[in-house]
Amino acid sequence: MTLAASILAGDRLALARLLTLIENDSDAGRAALDELFAHTGRAHIIGVTGAPGTGKSSLVNRLALHFRAGQKRVAITAVDPSSPFTGGAVLGDRVRMRDLAGDPGVFIRSMASRGSLGGLARATAAVAQVFDAAGFDVVLIETVGAGQAEVDIARLAHTTLVVEAPGLGDDIQAIKAGILEIADVLVVNKADRPGADQTEKALRSALELAHPVPHVFRHHGVDLQVQAPGPAAPAPLWIPPIHRTVATAGGGIAELADSIDRHAAHLRQGGDWAVRDRNRLEAEFDSLIQAKLVRQFRNRVPDSQYNEIIHNLSERRISPWQAVEQLLGREE
Amino acid sequence: MTLAASILAGDRLALARLLTLIENDSDAGRAALDELFAHTGRAHIIGVTGAPGTGKSSLVNRLALHFRAGQKRVAITAVDPSSPFTGGAVLGDRVRMRDLAGDPGVFIRSMASRGSLGGLARATAAVAQVFDAAGFDVVLIETVGAGQAEVDIARLAHTTLVVEAPGLGDDIQAIKAGILEIADVLVVNKADRPGADQTEKALRSALELAHPVPHVFRHHGVDLQVQAPGPAAPAPLWIPPIHRTVATAGGGIAELADSIDRHAAHLRQGGDWAVRDRNRLEAEFDSLIQAKLVRQFRNRVPDSQYNEIIHNLSERRISPWQAVEQLLGREE
Repeated sequence: MTLAASILAGDRLALARLLTLIENDSDAGRAALDELFAHTGRAHIIGVTGAPGTGKSSLVNRLALHFRAGQKRVAITAVDPSSPFTGGAVLGDRVRMRDLAGDPGVFIRSMASRGSLGGLARATAAVAQVFDAAGFDVVLIETVGAGQAEVDIARLAHTTLVVEAPGLGDDIQAIKAGILEIADVLVVNKADRPGADQTEKALRSALELAHPVPHVFRHHGVDLQVQAPGPAAPAPLWIPPIHRTVATAGGGIAELADSIDRHAAHLRQGGDWAVRDRNRLEAEFDSLIQAKLVRQFRNRVPDSQYNEIIHNLSERRISPWQAVEQLLGREE
Repeated sequence: MTLAASILAGDRLALARLLTLIENDSDAGRAALDELFAHTGRAHIIGVTGAPGTGKSSLVNRLALHFRAGQKRVAITAVDPSSPFTGGAVLGDRVRMRDLAGDPGVFIRSMASRGSLGGLARATAAVAQVFDAAGFDVVLIETVGAGQAEVDIARLAHTTLVVEAPGLGDDIQAIKAGILEIADVLVVNKADRPGADQTEKALRSALELAHPVPHVFRHHGVDLQVQAPGPAAPAPLWIPPIHRTVATAGGGIAELADSIDRHAAHLRQGGDWAVRDRNRLEAEFDSLIQAKLVRQFRNRVPDSQYNEIIHNLSERRISPWQAVEQLLGREE
C-alpha cells in the first residue's frame, strides 16, 4: 500500500509521516502529493491571521471545537514564519492540544519556516492539500503576524479571518489598511478588554473606506447589508462582518462560525469558490516553477563563476543588475 | 548631467525622483543604480525591526536626531510590507517628519509593498544603495512586524536592532525565539511601562540560550562580556546588549546609539563588515536572478499553454508538480 493510499484509508501515522516528508521537501513526499492531488478540492480552507497578541491560537482552538460539535473533521496547521532558525513551534502544539487531544476527528500540525518564505508558502499549500485529500472538512491555517508573508499565506484560503484585539498599540492601525482588503470576516478578539469599542469602531471605519459601495448598518450586533441603489446589481456583495469574541471563554464563537459557513455558501453560490481554488493553484504552480528555475540555473552555473561574480560585486566592479545581464542576457 | 550625477552632487530632488523610479521598477532607475553602485559601500546600514506596538518609529526618529547631533547624515526608509494594496505609508511619513523636517542632513522615505515580497526586498536594497551612494553616513531601515519577511529585510543591515516593549501579549515570546538570532542589539522600548523588568528578563534568558558560550553579567546597566574559559579564543564575540529606552521622551537613546557605534567598530575590526556586505550583495543578486528567470520563462511560454495548465490543475487532471515537470523537465 502506498503512503498516499494509507492516508486515503484514514491512517493517521501515515498522514503524520507525509507531513514530515513535505516539510523536508523530499521526493517521496512529492510522489505521494501527486497521488493525492486528484482527491483534493473538497475541504473548506480557512485562513486566520492577525498581529501577535490578538489570541489567534485560542480562537482557532475554539473554532475547531465548534466545528467538531457539528461532526466536521478539522485539521489545523499553524504557520510560524517568525522562527526561521529554531524550527518547530512545539510549545504552540502542546498548548493547543489540551482541548483537542485524543479526538480522531482532529489533526494538528505546526510548521516552522526552515528556509525561504516561498518554501514555507509552498509547504503550507501542500499540507492543506494533504488534509483536504485525507478527508478533513475544514482546514484552518493560522499565521502569526500580519505582514505580506502572512497575506500571501492567507490567500491560500477560501475564507480569511483577520483578528484584532484591543490595546495593541498604534501601529495596528497601519496594518489594518492592507490586511482589510483580504479579510472576509473580521474578529475583535479579547472583546472583554477595555478598548474593544474603539477597536471595532476603527475596523468599521476602515472597512467602509475599503468597501465604499454598499452601506453597512449595524443594529443590535447584527450586520444588515443594504445594497446602494444603482443599476441592477449582479452577484450579491460580501461585506466582511465584524465579530466580537472572547476566545479563551468561548464567547461569540458560534456566531463567528456561522459567518464562516455563510461565507462558504456565498462563495459557492456566486462561483467564487472555483475562482479562489484556481487562484490558489496558480499561485502554487508559479511558486514551484520559480523554485525549479532557480535550481536549474544554479546547477548550470559553475560555483567558480558564481563566486567570481559575487567577488566583483563586493569590489564594486559591476552592479548587481550588470551581473544578472552578464549571466542571463539583456533581453527578457 | 545624468540623474546619478545629480544625486552624487547632492541634489535632493534628483534623489527623490530616483527613489520613485526604483519603486516603479523602471529602466531609467536601473541605469542610475548601475551608475551609482561604484559609490556604495560606505554607509552604516542599520535595521530596526520588532512587532507592531513596540514604538519602532519613535525610536528610529530619536536615533536619527542623535546621529544628526553628531554631524552624521542620516537616511531613513520605513518598509511596510503589511500594506500590499493601499500603497504608501503617507501618514507614517508625516508623523515622523515633525522633528526632522527641514534638516538637509536627513532624508526620509517610506516604502509600501506594491507587489511581491521579493520585489519589496529588492527595492529596499536598491534604496539603501542610493542613500549610500548619495553620501548618507547612516541608513536606518525600519520594518513593521517581525515575520520572516522582516528578518530577510533586516539581513540587509550591518547592525540589526530588535525592539520589544512590555505588555504586548503572549505571542511575543514565540517571536523572540527566531528573531533573537539576527539581533545585534536588543531594545526594550516603552521601558517606563509596567512589565519592563519581565520583558528584559525574558529577553536575557532567551539571549543566554541563543548564545550559550560566554557568560553575560549585568552590572549597573552595563553589559560586561566575559569569555568562557577555553582554548585561545580567536575574534572577540559580540554579545547583543539589551537597552532600555523611552523613545517618546528620548530616554536611553544616547546609550543605544553608543552600542550601535560599538557594533560597527566590532564588525570592522573582526572583518565581519566585509562579510555582511558580501552576503547582502549575494542575496540581492540571487533575488534579481530569480525575478529575471521568472520573467524570461513567462515570455517563453505562450499564454494559451499556461492557461491550459492552470485549467488542468483546477480539474485535478495533473498535480502542480506534474505540471512543472511538463514545462521544465524532470531533471534539475
